[in-house]
Amino acid sequence: MTWRKRIFEILEAGRADVPFARATDIALMTLILLNVFAVILESIPEQEAAYRDQFFAFEIFSVIIFTIEYFLRVWSCIEIDHHDRFRHPIRGRLRYLLTPMALIDLVAILPFYLSVIFAVDLRVLRVLRLLRIFKLTRYSSAITLLLEVLREEVRPILAAFFISSLLAIIAANFAYFAEHAAQPEKFRSIPDALWWAVITMTTVGYGDVVPITPFGKVIGGFLGIIGIGMVALPAGFLASGFATALHRRKARYKGMVDQVLANGMLSADDEKILERSRSELGLAEEDVEEILESEIQQRHVKIDVCPHCGKSLA
Amino acid sequence: MTWRKRIFEILEAGRADVPFARATDIALMTLILLNVFAVILESIPEQEAAYRDQFFAFEIFSVIIFTIEYFLRVWSCIEIDHHDRFRHPIRGRLRYLLTPMALIDLVAILPFYLSVIFAVDLRVLRVLRLLRIFKLTRYSSAITLLLEVLREEVRPILAAFFISSLLAIIAANFAYFAEHAAQPEKFRSIPDALWWAVITMTTVGYGDVVPITPFGKVIGGFLGIIGIGMVALPAGFLASGFATALHRRKARYKGMVDQVLANGMLSADDEKILERSRSELGLAEEDVEEILESEIQQRHVKIDVCPHCGKSLA
Amino acid sequence: MTWRKRIFEILEAGRADVPFARATDIALMTLILLNVFAVILESIPEQEAAYRDQFFAFEIFSVIIFTIEYFLRVWSCIEIDHHDRFRHPIRGRLRYLLTPMALIDLVAILPFYLSVIFAVDLRVLRVLRLLRIFKLTRYSSAITLLLEVLREEVRPILAAFFISSLLAIIAANFAYFAEHAAQPEKFRSIPDALWWAVITMTTVGYGDVVPITPFGKVIGGFLGIIGIGMVALPAGFLASGFATALHRRKARYKGMVDQVLANGMLSADDEKILERSRSELGLAEEDVEEILESEIQQRHVKIDVCPHCGKSLA
Amino acid sequence: MTWRKRIFEILEAGRADVPFARATDIALMTLILLNVFAVILESIPEQEAAYRDQFFAFEIFSVIIFTIEYFLRVWSCIEIDHHDRFRHPIRGRLRYLLTPMALIDLVAILPFYLSVIFAVDLRVLRVLRLLRIFKLTRYSSAITLLLEVLREEVRPILAAFFISSLLAIIAANFAYFAEHAAQPEKFRSIPDALWWAVITMTTVGYGDVVPITPFGKVIGGFLGIIGIGMVALPAGFLASGFATALHRRKARYKGMVDQVLANGMLSADDEKILERSRSELGLAEEDVEEILESEIQQRHVKIDVCPHCGKSLA
Repeated sequence: MTWRKRIFEILEAGRADVPFARATDIALMTLILLNVFAVILESIPEQEAAYRDQFFAFEIFSVIIFTIEYFLRVWSCIEIDHHDRFRHPIRGRLRYLLTPMALIDLVAILPFYLSVIFAVDLRVLRVLRLLRIFKLTRYSSAITLLLEVLREEVRPILAAFFISSLLAIIAANFAYFAEHAAQPEKFRSIPDALWWAVITMTTVGYGDVVPITPFGKVIGGFLGIIGIGMVALPAGFLASGFATALHRRKARYKGMVDQVLANGMLSADDEKILERSRSELGLAEEDVEEILESEIQQRHVKIDVCPHCGKSLA
Repeated sequence: MTWRKRIFEILEAGRADVPFARATDIALMTLILLNVFAVILESIPEQEAAYRDQFFAFEIFSVIIFTIEYFLRVWSCIEIDHHDRFRHPIRGRLRYLLTPMALIDLVAILPFYLSVIFAVDLRVLRVLRLLRIFKLTRYSSAITLLLEVLREEVRPILAAFFISSLLAIIAANFAYFAEHAAQPEKFRSIPDALWWAVITMTTVGYGDVVPITPFGKVIGGFLGIIGIGMVALPAGFLASGFATALHRRKARYKGMVDQVLANGMLSADDEKILERSRSELGLAEEDVEEILESEIQQRHVKIDVCPHCGKSLA
Repeated sequence: MTWRKRIFEILEAGRADVPFARATDIALMTLILLNVFAVILESIPEQEAAYRDQFFAFEIFSVIIFTIEYFLRVWSCIEIDHHDRFRHPIRGRLRYLLTPMALIDLVAILPFYLSVIFAVDLRVLRVLRLLRIFKLTRYSSAITLLLEVLREEVRPILAAFFISSLLAIIAANFAYFAEHAAQPEKFRSIPDALWWAVITMTTVGYGDVVPITPFGKVIGGFLGIIGIGMVALPAGFLASGFATALHRRKARYKGMVDQVLANGMLSADDEKILERSRSELGLAEEDVEEILESEIQQRHVKIDVCPHCGKSLA
Repeated sequence: MTWRKRIFEILEAGRADVPFARATDIALMTLILLNVFAVILESIPEQEAAYRDQFFAFEIFSVIIFTIEYFLRVWSCIEIDHHDRFRHPIRGRLRYLLTPMALIDLVAILPFYLSVIFAVDLRVLRVLRLLRIFKLTRYSSAITLLLEVLREEVRPILAAFFISSLLAIIAANFAYFAEHAAQPEKFRSIPDALWWAVITMTTVGYGDVVPITPFGKVIGGFLGIIGIGMVALPAGFLASGFATALHRRKARYKGMVDQVLANGMLSADDEKILERSRSELGLAEEDVEEILESEIQQRHVKIDVCPHCGKSLA
């Protein structure tokens, strides 16, 4: 096994069977979280004054680690076993550079190098450093699945948002009508009324702008009641979409298991195919374990691999 | 092809295959959004003072465009291929004038002409101008589907609202009991207590009226807990109703595909039938693409149309 | 047809085919709503002072109508076609008196008569008069269905409430710890902290009690996040329970339709059986219409009744 | 029957058929609730001053009862009929000591004994005494089922929380940008902005920190709208997960019923097997009653047990 292959397997998330892989995952996740924590802490004036040097040193250290990680990932990406998409030494790597995950990794380090070259506002830089948190996405199949469901359900969600905006704009207009005379400084214009409408509809209700006329209160009450139904819709769409997506993926995985076990055996190669299928479908090991086991039991399949390390028993 | 047919196809929303259709859609949608934006901006006293003429010019321009659009739609409506419903030159057009979409288009321009004839309060006019936003409904099948689901689920939603109202009224009464003596100016009457109850139940919680007696707090707590369950119900009904409706429509579309592909071919005429069926069912192109493709694959259907422009290959 | 039978059919809710039935329904519903409105209005001191006599006259009038309605219902209840449960002149009527609907009708009038005999606090009386709103329950099958689902789902809902209470109590304790020293008058005791916890968990967030210490804020943040998941659960249970219940009832109705149409005919008697089944299942006419029509179409059933008035064509 | 067996059956929750079992359940539940109530009451300075001795006496009394209960449970645990897991007098009891339920029972009494030996802060002790409320978990199968669903759905819930945290951190950063100059004391640092972001996202909206700049308000509005979708997701996951889990368990129970009734008889032994299966699946008696009855009806099963006491009729 080449070093490149070894590095690849260590860096690829969620490979429990590869030595150092789990430790690397945890180390990188910890570093990302510490980075976020550092950015938040640095914004407190006293902390910033007291530990300026330490914060800077930690930033340098993090950038070095993330840069090494980035180059190792790009170097080893041609080992990705995804229908030879990334197989070519140059074209494959260029393709990899444009994947969302690689772009997130780039965004995590690029601002630092740019700030060294150009004079950038430090506060803008801080926001960009915060984006490192997106690197965590890699480590959870549930997050990627959720983001995918978000994309699938984007049309009804946007429709709900559109209807909500419509309601907010119309309610803001009526409230402006009703309250402008009574509270000219709070309902100064429709944009002010719109701020009130959004805060009421989302049921946040800060209380900085509150209707005081009877008609304004009626509008506020209706907006709260109707709003909650519209604004809470996206959560309903996402939840039901997520359940459907998980169900569909499990069904696809089960289909793959059926194919693989058709010859009455589960060889080490079969296991690899299933593992790849699982990872491509974005399912967690816990999700598929039960499916695989019940299929094996039902078919009295002869297992050729150790259930613990996944290696061939032959 | 007649000019009337051409205009009809350009104006009909979502026809990606007709030249100018997409551009017209985007131009009209932009104009609608700019109108809404203008109404909101005009309500800010400084903006109104500074750009009064520009706002007026833009209003004139918008009304002209929308008037032309309206008349073109009415003129070309007899091309609508909906079981000859709008086919007759006079009766068909009268029928079209009464469809919700045509009424929305009328409401978008009528107030301006009325204000020219009669002296109307400008602020009332502004609200009516805001209704132009409803013209956007045409451009999203998800919105029309959502509105349809709203209509289907109206009974359980009203039931939930009724029970919520019941709870609010009874809680308001008890709170009035508990708080009237302690805060006579805040809980002056049951309508005041009702305002508090609605704002608590919808979990908006402005904080302008807050119970201070122990009994009042107990009622407030219960109202918040029970209320959230009732007030959030409509969102649940809508979300599950939406999922069901989408599922049912896809099933109907699939049935149509089955019929059309029964002869083992997909001709240009078949495609037209399916397209009409899709648009009548309020499904988006993304929704049906997968269905059609999988059916074609399963049946080894011979395709007679170009997959890109939809024109016959024969 | 006897007068008793006629009265019964008029009073029974939702019989569109009986003359006067619809008008009676609407009249009684209007009277109930006016009563609720009167109670609310009467609580406004100015209104009460100005219209005291009118309010009293309306109360007398309402009680007379509701009393007549009550006695007519009890008198005619033996016509209820519910497996002879209420058939017996005395035992049947006693049974009817104990049904929830009859009790609600009694509660709507009894307080008035008690107040005539005993000296009752007028404000207590007002609350009891408000309970007349429950009489509306009769007029919506969606409400009765929703209440039934509430009863079916009561166990998981109570479980969610129990876990919510647990979280609230524990969070209140921690918040009391954290905030008692900083805001001794706002977090005076655990009950005070509990009020804060409930208002935070339900996301009402009045803002009358707000944590100011870092630890208190962390608890508040967690309580909001975890709380929203728990407190919104009952709505989820209810929504999914409602969908399931409606589905199950429609399936049962469809089973009944299958039985009735087995002989290939839909007679006037069949229609009556189906109508009774529909009303017993608490389904609305809109719910079942589609089922019946599609079954009739599929089976090429010969229809013996007019589709409009439901009378036999033979 | 030995005393140990008898004690075991009395203490095991939900055995309606054993004398004293129901009474013991209710007595213990009441004592737990009174304990929680006492802790809350004791935190009110006036109550604590007035009833210090009574509170102490009640605490002593409670600890004695809970200690006896604990030892009786440990002593009788070897009667648990769970595949002989707890059968062994020593190893079985040690195993039992480590079950969650036994640990909760221990936590309910241990703090008192520790406080007698060591000098513990009384307020810390009070929190620990509050944990007695967890003892109630035993008495509701719905709670245990809900907690199990929580465990099953933990991955998507954590994913939703992760994305929520991400949004909150990024929004806090932007809000800090926008508001720091305008309200330096309210948006002093990112942690302060984070507090605002969490309170906005969860829609609590106390109103102690409110954006006043236009950009801050836009961020607040978006955070409210997007936040509500993300923060309400866990409730959706839990609700749908609960429905699925209940469905799956009922299916498993039905499978067990099928097996047991295969011989066309329902003997007293069969009933015991079904009862154990029901309790292991965490289903309530109401959940399974309908299943069992419909299966018995369908199969014309000969019943050998009294439907009321569950004893053999042979």
